[in-house]
Amino acid sequence: MTVFLTKELEALKKMILSEGARVEEAIARAIRAFLERDFEQAEAVIQADSVIDRMEIEVEEECINILALYQPVANDLRFVVAVLKINNDLERMGDIAANIAKRAARIAARARMDMDFDFAKMAAKAQSMVRRSIDALVNRDVALARQVCADDDELDAMRHDLHDRAPHRMEQTPEQADVLLQYLAVARHLERLGDMATNVAEDVIYMVEGEIIRHQTGLGGDRGD
Amino acid sequence: MTVFLTKELEALKKMILSEGARVEEAIARAIRAFLERDFEQAEAVIQADSVIDRMEIEVEEECINILALYQPVANDLRFVVAVLKINNDLERMGDIAANIAKRAARIAARARMDMDFDFAKMAAKAQSMVRRSIDALVNRDVALARQVCADDDELDAMRHDLHDRAPHRMEQTPEQADVLLQYLAVARHLERLGDMATNVAEDVIYMVEGEIIRHQTGLGGDRGD
Repeated sequence: MTVFLTKELEALKKMILSEGARVEEAIARAIRAFLERDFEQAEAVIQADSVIDRMEIEVEEECINILALYQPVANDLRFVVAVLKINNDLERMGDIAANIAKRAARIAARARMDMDFDFAKMAAKAQSMVRRSIDALVNRDVALARQVCADDDELDAMRHDLHDRAPHRMEQTPEQADVLLQYLAVARHLERLGDMATNVAEDVIYMVEGEIIRHQTGLGGDRGD
Repeated sequence: MTVFLTKELEALKKMILSEGARVEEAIARAIRAFLERDFEQAEAVIQADSVIDRMEIEVEEECINILALYQPVANDLRFVVAVLKINNDLERMGDIAANIAKRAARIAARARMDMDFDFAKMAAKAQSMVRRSIDALVNRDVALARQVCADDDELDAMRHDLHDRAPHRMEQTPEQADVLLQYLAVARHLERLGDMATNVAEDVIYMVEGEIIRHQTGLGGDRGD
């Protein structure tokens, strides 16, 4: 029985890793579409979201199968519960990547706007947080998970920087207000990706240490705003 | 054994209902603080979020206990898995209510801005969606869950209405751009509450019918943007 359970858990790890890789790719492509005003690429990201949606359902069914057939306990049980939650997060990260692509599609025909803001860097940071949070999960790596939590402040700061400059910019060039709103939306989406990677990392720490850090103040910044 | 499991599941239902009631209350108070420019009330909502955070942890521990001790199968197993996911959503709804309260606190000293927009109505709709999604869960009520999904379009439309008018408003009164950005943020938060209630409702339908509707297009609008 234990051998079978071990095999199933290994298969589950592979599934969640490959779902994570898909999400990372979607983020990267959505940001490229946004930066390069590439309508076709934006559309492709929106279409590809259904693949992530399908993967989420498969992972959830695999978790339910494992719980029903092998009745795991202790660490194995906590791992499956963590995967259930993280799976949910990954699917939403896929939605966010699609949302970035929708913004990209909307402004594809518009001229670029110089905001002196490095979206590519912010996106790379978000992607890296997503990747490391999943790696932390499958390797039960608390140190890596803590790194992810710490990185979230950086992403928050980047978004706040752009956000703080927005009102002044709107006063200066009110005719560009609608494009600027799309820029703010994309920065907010990237920040939310960081928040969700932080959720994943916190779940990993909680799983491994049984430590309730999720709601301690000062870790991972304020989520979702 | 079954009697004990039934009792535990009843207790779990009560816990998730009371967590949901807390979230509803937080939304209502946050919007009141925002509309009435009430700094103290906003602060109170932010402080009270830790209660919801604690409830989330208790619900998760109860789920893990039930899985470990009673090894539920079939419907009972799917119910516990649904609660695990919905519990996560409720905690985030609590975060969103706190985020609305933060916006309220930030503009508490500012004059009201007439936007001809009914925030109270939008908030009441979001609250009602949250309540009905939880009721649908504990009563396994698919019809109610479908109602919630249908309502989401209304919330999306309200947010889009405000959002569409924003660029023009910014051109007209650029000196109010920062307050307007807070208004847009609050409408977006309310829309996200509706999205999350829709997630919950979709989980209920999936649980009851084993039907994969989560990723069908045209149900529940486009989430998260």
